[in-house]
Amino acid sequence: MSAETFDVRYPTGAHGHGSDAMNKDPDYSAAYLVLTTDNPELAGHSLVFTIGRGNDLQCASVEALAQMVIGETVEGLVDRLGDIGRNLVRDSQIRWLGPEKGIPHMAAGCIINALWDIVCKVEGKPLWQVLSGLSPEQLVDLIDFRHISDALSPEEALALFQKAQPLRQEREAQLLSDGLPAYTTTPGWLGYNDETMVRLAREAVADGFRFIKLKVGGSLENDRHRIKLMRETVGPDITLAVDANQVWDVPEAIAWIKGLEDDLIHWVEEPTSPDDIVGHKAIQDAIAPIRVATGEHVHNRIMVKQFLQLGAISFLQIDATRVAGVNENIAMIAMAAKFGVPVCPHAGGVGLCEMVQHLAMFDAVAVTGHHSSRVVEFVDHLHEHFVHPTVVDKGRYRAPLSAGAGAEMKPQSIKDYSYPSGKAWK
Amino acid sequence: MSAETFDVRYPTGAHGHGSDAMNKDPDYSAAYLVLTTDNPELAGHSLVFTIGRGNDLQCASVEALAQMVIGETVEGLVDRLGDIGRNLVRDSQIRWLGPEKGIPHMAAGCIINALWDIVCKVEGKPLWQVLSGLSPEQLVDLIDFRHISDALSPEEALALFQKAQPLRQEREAQLLSDGLPAYTTTPGWLGYNDETMVRLAREAVADGFRFIKLKVGGSLENDRHRIKLMRETVGPDITLAVDANQVWDVPEAIAWIKGLEDDLIHWVEEPTSPDDIVGHKAIQDAIAPIRVATGEHVHNRIMVKQFLQLGAISFLQIDATRVAGVNENIAMIAMAAKFGVPVCPHAGGVGLCEMVQHLAMFDAVAVTGHHSSRVVEFVDHLHEHFVHPTVVDKGRYRAPLSAGAGAEMKPQSIKDYSYPSGKAWK
Repeated sequence: MSAETFDVRYPTGAHGHGSDAMNKDPDYSAAYLVLTTDNPELAGHSLVFTIGRGNDLQCASVEALAQMVIGETVEGLVDRLGDIGRNLVRDSQIRWLGPEKGIPHMAAGCIINALWDIVCKVEGKPLWQVLSGLSPEQLVDLIDFRHISDALSPEEALALFQKAQPLRQEREAQLLSDGLPAYTTTPGWLGYNDETMVRLAREAVADGFRFIKLKVGGSLENDRHRIKLMRETVGPDITLAVDANQVWDVPEAIAWIKGLEDDLIHWVEEPTSPDDIVGHKAIQDAIAPIRVATGEHVHNRIMVKQFLQLGAISFLQIDATRVAGVNENIAMIAMAAKFGVPVCPHAGGVGLCEMVQHLAMFDAVAVTGHHSSRVVEFVDHLHEHFVHPTVVDKGRYRAPLSAGAGAEMKPQSIKDYSYPSGKAWK
Repeated sequence: MSAETFDVRYPTGAHGHGSDAMNKDPDYSAAYLVLTTDNPELAGHSLVFTIGRGNDLQCASVEALAQMVIGETVEGLVDRLGDIGRNLVRDSQIRWLGPEKGIPHMAAGCIINALWDIVCKVEGKPLWQVLSGLSPEQLVDLIDFRHISDALSPEEALALFQKAQPLRQEREAQLLSDGLPAYTTTPGWLGYNDETMVRLAREAVADGFRFIKLKVGGSLENDRHRIKLMRETVGPDITLAVDANQVWDVPEAIAWIKGLEDDLIHWVEEPTSPDDIVGHKAIQDAIAPIRVATGEHVHNRIMVKQFLQLGAISFLQIDATRVAGVNENIAMIAMAAKFGVPVCPHAGGVGLCEMVQHLAMFDAVAVTGHHSSRVVEFVDHLHEHFVHPTVVDKGRYRAPLSAGAGAEMKPQSIKDYSYPSGKAWK
């Protein structure tokens, strides 16, 4: 195999898309990897999502770490992916830079995900279906149990997957028929004025969405106003959640959320630092019946373990590119299943919907099944750049049927948005 | 100002120095920064310690982030360092890669520390003395209270520094007279055979050390053997601690430490993942009276906050280059003081002794004072490459009197060990 990376950046910052209380002007970006094989028709595509500056460093880290897998072959690859994943995060010198967090950890995830893309293309199936076709033993082998065995042992994970195995066929049929419920953040960005928010919210409901998320944390008064206006716009039957993108300290979070004076809010997302497990627990206890969600910035399975052990969150929002790839997300899905916390994936950005939908669908088929607590984020940006864009219809993700793990971008998009040479940046 | 970085690596991996259960063959390395000023005689030197691969990425991150400070001037710099520190970790696009952890966070620390080096050189004083000469208000302004105010408010920090202020003069005199107690890891590396260990342990005691640390976690039988042999070698009056460098899972850590059958062990360091606050708490509760120490890989003040809130550690081992520099280490020292946990800095590597000694001395003069629980790690490697190498005499760090923050390396060393062009790598 050989590895090539591309620094792809979309100039989204100028338009207020994706703006929130923490991230003022994100340029949605991808540290994009292509792993080529001896077969010119077969390549693994993957990406790490970033929001602009530093995307070059992320590319450099992916490219350096990818040297560890260029000796890999396609034959029997699926059964080596557990070991490859463990090796990628255990290089003893690279590990010092984390351990298991940040740039090199996301790089490991990018490489693992590109290898999964190859496996899927060889099998001619979408990732969710490949994963849902693995034996419980194969799934267990994908998990790195280091530092999580006190919360989930290999035996427990095996039992969990075995229990779901007889139900897979029925669940897959339901998935193919009904898809999975999506929620939309499209109307809720902090940079939008009232008129834009109301228009987009009406469109979202007309499109079939039953769940809308608003960004909050700029000013309490403005948040109250926007939530009230949103509620008036969409009516009582639409679920509303809010997202503070980490801007509050713990006492401030508690006071602010209570100050919103709306106990119908379904969840508060990222009320404080994603590192603050103890703080999330304090917030969750104080703001009941409103519940707490986090995950998109939670950097590995060891952090997720603790959020679950302390009962600090009610919804786990896994992200396709924050952690060490599909493998570590399977570990998280399995832990969440054991602790009874629903996985409601984070998406948006660029390519995150295309990628993370597979993990939600794997969960629905081969782990926790279909249930009313799962909802998958959807943001209607930048899908046109993907070879197989996400299909959301009547507020539901449709199960993709094309082969792959979802991240493959159109060659023209890679070219046009390459930074700083692409024509979008001239 | 202008910024230049150097990828400096020492080929230590080939000799077993620095070997432990997690890190088999570290090449002690420095992502080295020089911030030059308009004055050709005045430059700020700093480094991030890494152990080899990835040092190039660390350099690239330092160089990119340093662009944020090249407009800075020397005049009045000390009073802007709080804001500069906060700005360096809050660039909204870079923050996505962490947040506040890993490569960009260590890069921020490197830049902050280089600016401190400039401040020290302008004042003609060592860092510990510059910090110990700041007013309580100036110290409070250096702390980034974001996401820690539930554990330490600005008012609490101010009271803490104010309380110590009248005692500074007396404590400084004691520091200048007695230094601070060091402990040594030099005899304890896992790669050494019995003969080497015994010889180095005898030398350490003859040199005046009263505290020795052994690496453990390879095999329980071997650990028992080495601890017994070490105890026979040094006698009952020398304090022994052990360091597992994160290799255990929580249940394994508890069983292993109990299996050492030695309740006189002063602390067990890094028994499991540095991310696992809840796990450290479980271990600490299970292995009493042996206590738990960690910190060298704890990536920011928000993690330290939780270790303290949960009572998960008995000793906090701050590191000079893991976090966002002097500023974030002051936050940690202040939090530890509030929670009554002694700060026992991690050192070794390359330049860590030279840098972190200043923070321990600041703590001893301007925060918690001189007390019997403080001990500062010392490893006798690579000091010869520094312009002002650490002086440890009769087992005690002597207070450095030369101006600077400690990290300045000799130009010839930078040249000879530059990777891959230096003659050490030819």
